[in-house]
Amino acid sequence: MPPAIPSEIRIIGITGMPEVQPGDDLAALLVSAAQNQGTAIQPGDVVVVTQKVVSKAEGRVVRLEDVTPSPLAITISEGHRRDPRHTEVVLRESKRIVRMDRGVIISETYHGFICANAGVDASNVPGATTLCLLPLDPDASARRIRQGIQQRLGVTTAVIISDTFGRPWRSGATNVAIGVAGIDPMLSYVGQEDAHGKTLHTTVLCVADELAAAAELAAGKVLGVPVVLIRGYPYQPSESASHQALLRDPDKDLFR
Amino acid sequence: MPPAIPSEIRIIGITGMPEVQPGDDLAALLVSAAQNQGTAIQPGDVVVVTQKVVSKAEGRVVRLEDVTPSPLAITISEGHRRDPRHTEVVLRESKRIVRMDRGVIISETYHGFICANAGVDASNVPGATTLCLLPLDPDASARRIRQGIQQRLGVTTAVIISDTFGRPWRSGATNVAIGVAGIDPMLSYVGQEDAHGKTLHTTVLCVADELAAAAELAAGKVLGVPVVLIRGYPYQPSESASHQALLRDPDKDLFR
Repeated sequence: MPPAIPSEIRIIGITGMPEVQPGDDLAALLVSAAQNQGTAIQPGDVVVVTQKVVSKAEGRVVRLEDVTPSPLAITISEGHRRDPRHTEVVLRESKRIVRMDRGVIISETYHGFICANAGVDASNVPGATTLCLLPLDPDASARRIRQGIQQRLGVTTAVIISDTFGRPWRSGATNVAIGVAGIDPMLSYVGQEDAHGKTLHTTVLCVADELAAAAELAAGKVLGVPVVLIRGYPYQPSESASHQALLRDPDKDLFR
Repeated sequence: MPPAIPSEIRIIGITGMPEVQPGDDLAALLVSAAQNQGTAIQPGDVVVVTQKVVSKAEGRVVRLEDVTPSPLAITISEGHRRDPRHTEVVLRESKRIVRMDRGVIISETYHGFICANAGVDASNVPGATTLCLLPLDPDASARRIRQGIQQRLGVTTAVIISDTFGRPWRSGATNVAIGVAGIDPMLSYVGQEDAHGKTLHTTVLCVADELAAAAELAAGKVLGVPVVLIRGYPYQPSESASHQALLRDPDKDLFR
């Protein structure tokens, strides 16, 4: 059985997070910020944390001056805006190039995500020449934050690490989940009956991505709201959650 | 300037909608259902309506017994679960086949959406042999609902028609926007500065899809909640909104 439909879900942005430094304890920072705002984290909250602060806390940043571009990175970058050293970092973060055209690199990361520039990004990073990489293991990042909240407050939450990905066919980007802890990221209706008693054969929803998208509405890109609580959503708990469930089986993907 | 980040956004499912019939006035039905639930629709609410009830109200349903499959539809269906008449309807709703493999048809609809089976669907439709098609003009559908709410309650809202689409690379489906009224579906940060004073060059978010995804969390597939209000999200009003803005420029799409 899927969870009952709630009467109301709340999306609550946590403001007042400090600039995150390598080695920072994110759980401690977000628990404090929520308390300072008068928003106690409650059992069952889904805590959505944007990738950027996770990567910063984990030291997943690279300074361009420390990078020597390969001949391939230099060739690819010719005639485009991207610095060849930036391109070099994108290539290093990729295990497979899916498309490369007109200055755009769509690649598969070591985690299995297919996205632009292997998730390497220069926005919201201090220093004009600093790049931010995806966390090495976003599920582990989510678990650490979840455990930190549990230890400090004694409440069991779900944690989602989100990032902003573009997609084929549709304009613009949306936030999606790249790491999960404590929540089954998928919700299957297969075998259940619809309102007309007809058995559903195929519907599986990626609720982790829907939660990440919902959180983005209260996060914004420029105002420094890297943590959002979603309260009142009856997620399916899972202690073995993994971003692997978010990856489409290559055998069922016609666009790889 | 993008809108200020709100302190809290609420996602409110509207229960108690009756089974929708062809010719029904959806605005009247959803205004009544909200009132019966004690949830007055307020100015600035984003009203997210699932495609299925819109299509039913507009008579966009087809009975299989009225369809004669073409030889192509029969050939495509061999060895797969889909009825050749169902396949025939999918082909008629498509202006272009993007991929066709292993029983899966990914096509471009006349609106320009690229999705499985041209959006033709048999779930949540009364009668084992009835298919539901996408609305002919989902923006017009959204405008009619918006005007109906305005006329009945005197409140200005935004309306999004949503549907459940799969996507490449990522498992499962999420709800996205297929029609919009009164809201700019895109939010651009291009030219703005991030928290470190760095100018953002590329970030455009598809907030209409994020709102549709958020609404799905309170809608569910099997419990008959086809209308969801999102309250407290400071959207950019637009009187000329169109789903065209949701379609990626073919020249910038590497996966068509």
